[in-house]
Amino acid sequence: MFKINDNYLKLPGSYLFSTIGKKVNAYSEANPDKQLIRLGIGDVTQPLVPEIIKALHRAVDEMGDARTFKGYAPDLGYEFLRSAIVRNDYKVRGAHVEIDEIFISDGAKSDSGNIQEIFSADNKIAVCDPVYPVYVDSNVMAGRTGTYDSKTEMWSRVGYMPCTAENGFVPELPKETPDIIYLCLPNNPTGTTLTKDQLQVWVDYANRAGAVIIYDAAYEAYISEENVAHSIYECEGARTCAIELRSFSKNAGFTGVRLGFTVVPKDLKCKDVSLNSLWARRHGTKFNGAPYIIQRAGEAVYSVEGRTQLKEQIAYYMENARIIYEGLQSAGYTVFGGVNAPYIWLKTPGDMTSWEFFDYLLEKANVVGTPGSGFGPSGEGYFRLTAFGNHENTKTAIKRIQGL
Amino acid sequence: MFKINDNYLKLPGSYLFSTIGKKVNAYSEANPDKQLIRLGIGDVTQPLVPEIIKALHRAVDEMGDARTFKGYAPDLGYEFLRSAIVRNDYKVRGAHVEIDEIFISDGAKSDSGNIQEIFSADNKIAVCDPVYPVYVDSNVMAGRTGTYDSKTEMWSRVGYMPCTAENGFVPELPKETPDIIYLCLPNNPTGTTLTKDQLQVWVDYANRAGAVIIYDAAYEAYISEENVAHSIYECEGARTCAIELRSFSKNAGFTGVRLGFTVVPKDLKCKDVSLNSLWARRHGTKFNGAPYIIQRAGEAVYSVEGRTQLKEQIAYYMENARIIYEGLQSAGYTVFGGVNAPYIWLKTPGDMTSWEFFDYLLEKANVVGTPGSGFGPSGEGYFRLTAFGNHENTKTAIKRIQGL
Repeated sequence: MFKINDNYLKLPGSYLFSTIGKKVNAYSEANPDKQLIRLGIGDVTQPLVPEIIKALHRAVDEMGDARTFKGYAPDLGYEFLRSAIVRNDYKVRGAHVEIDEIFISDGAKSDSGNIQEIFSADNKIAVCDPVYPVYVDSNVMAGRTGTYDSKTEMWSRVGYMPCTAENGFVPELPKETPDIIYLCLPNNPTGTTLTKDQLQVWVDYANRAGAVIIYDAAYEAYISEENVAHSIYECEGARTCAIELRSFSKNAGFTGVRLGFTVVPKDLKCKDVSLNSLWARRHGTKFNGAPYIIQRAGEAVYSVEGRTQLKEQIAYYMENARIIYEGLQSAGYTVFGGVNAPYIWLKTPGDMTSWEFFDYLLEKANVVGTPGSGFGPSGEGYFRLTAFGNHENTKTAIKRIQGL
Repeated sequence: MFKINDNYLKLPGSYLFSTIGKKVNAYSEANPDKQLIRLGIGDVTQPLVPEIIKALHRAVDEMGDARTFKGYAPDLGYEFLRSAIVRNDYKVRGAHVEIDEIFISDGAKSDSGNIQEIFSADNKIAVCDPVYPVYVDSNVMAGRTGTYDSKTEMWSRVGYMPCTAENGFVPELPKETPDIIYLCLPNNPTGTTLTKDQLQVWVDYANRAGAVIIYDAAYEAYISEENVAHSIYECEGARTCAIELRSFSKNAGFTGVRLGFTVVPKDLKCKDVSLNSLWARRHGTKFNGAPYIIQRAGEAVYSVEGRTQLKEQIAYYMENARIIYEGLQSAGYTVFGGVNAPYIWLKTPGDMTSWEFFDYLLEKANVVGTPGSGFGPSGEGYFRLTAFGNHENTKTAIKRIQGL
């Protein structure tokens, strides 16, 4: 009789955003007259910018003509996109990344879930706490996390690095050396980040300790401060210790378009085995490329017009961040983030737990946010709001919260 | 120090089609004047049909307007596509499949690579031999296949079920009971298939033995004979033993568009755990949905106009199959397949190995095919040609082969 991967059964409850979705649907069905405003899941609301729409139409036309039709894409992605990435995301910042170190994918969620596969099952991971749930969950599924303690909500073989108001959201170097360190900067969910100098400390540590950093830079487009690195490869020595995950979801509104990429430097090795070749093998065996038309849309992100239009879009969302941040602060909340990231992280008022505040906001203000405890034990007592709504809804939501 | 998943190191050589690609590129560079005809990789050449192009343009426009913009897709796929699938692929054939048993993905290659994840690491797989390389390779990466014998080109913990001219390409039931059985019907690479009655034998066997069948039906659109099932769920009892993988690559030319789906019936259980819920969990954790515009293209595949246009496209490729089949037969080759599938499987002439015949065809006829041995030990002495070229190239290729 076949058996299942029973690591799946260890996963407590369901994926955070599915749970929120179910709660919200139940409330909506019971209260069909209420106008909910969703500042929970990090989903964008603004349409694709005109330059990207143009590129998509053009590529669709190509697919309808035998002379320009495209079948299977090259394993690692089209060269036009990979070279645009190398030039615009790395070269201009003085970061050394080569074209065959870029792997185009259908998004950073897939990559952040799949990347653990190329590591040994007994490697130990460390994560910031709170953290994007996929890092831990995908390692649970692979049997890498030990046993779950439902009281502490912690796994026995996961190193947790608390990031709270107490330490200014700067994680301490782990006491017990991990093999794989997940860093998401600017951070989801806290909206905070490290300076380049603070990041350099981690790169040096990883190189010293023989650890790999999985660096999730999905929110780099929202960085507004000069002393924050957009890529980990701006730090000295990152090529021998870091894999970088990038997304088009937040810098170009591709949450429903699906495009991302992962950088695996050829200098990153375990003895003489290059992780670049392992990831290439995974890509070649279990993935068949992102759609041609979507890769053309990705290319348009880097065009002159595309960049100008997207700069405006990001400014639009960052204006929301300002509205939320200042609105909540003036209402007496303690607020973090929102300067280099589209997320606002607030302390729940009084003794409320994160989920209590979720229910309270849902029922009293009809605003949907994300409970901090859903991101890890140190997220308890915090709450995440996103800047990805439209101006009107965002203003209304903040007014409603101010009126509570 | 971090460690890698050293199962990857057990994989012999690189992925079949990468190897072919490298050989072909090397030949092209050395002989820039030669006009190669590629009937190797199963990639389509005809453009997307007009109804699909229309749907893509429409969906792109929706993405450019805030009122119709779509962010994250529902985890399992949009209902419009899933209900079209249930109606058109299953209900009309009397097969019972429900909407929440359909999981939309970015293609059958991802699904066939990822599906093994929900099973125990010590489960034993069985595959037809020859076989699509991804089934075995993805299980090698997961450490499920034991050790590799480079002489026999076999893994110690994989059950091989030879499918050759000797047994009419009908695999025998395994002597040693496997946990997971991969069946691809109509078959890639042999182009042959089983009758519905022959498939029923496998369903009954799997139910009796407590095995799961991973049923890859990527080529069902090419079935021309009445007594061949398009879905395994046309067989009695398949809901308790089979997962079905489907692709839009070959029925709608989506190799560069990327869309597929997997069916996991809720009746398929290991003790009281439903495999449907495990796959839903994997989907929700490590995947973020296929692009909205691509899912709209998938919907157009099932429209009245779409179906009419695609019927013509399939007839176009099947005419190629006829040209190859009859052309090779008249040239004295022993030929199989091509009736219910877009693949022609031929015996290599004389004592030539599959790779020798590959080089011979490449150099003497400038035709690229796929060596049968690349699909498994029992593929040695065979060779695959695909019907996915255009008429002109296909005719020219066959003339060149006839002229050898």
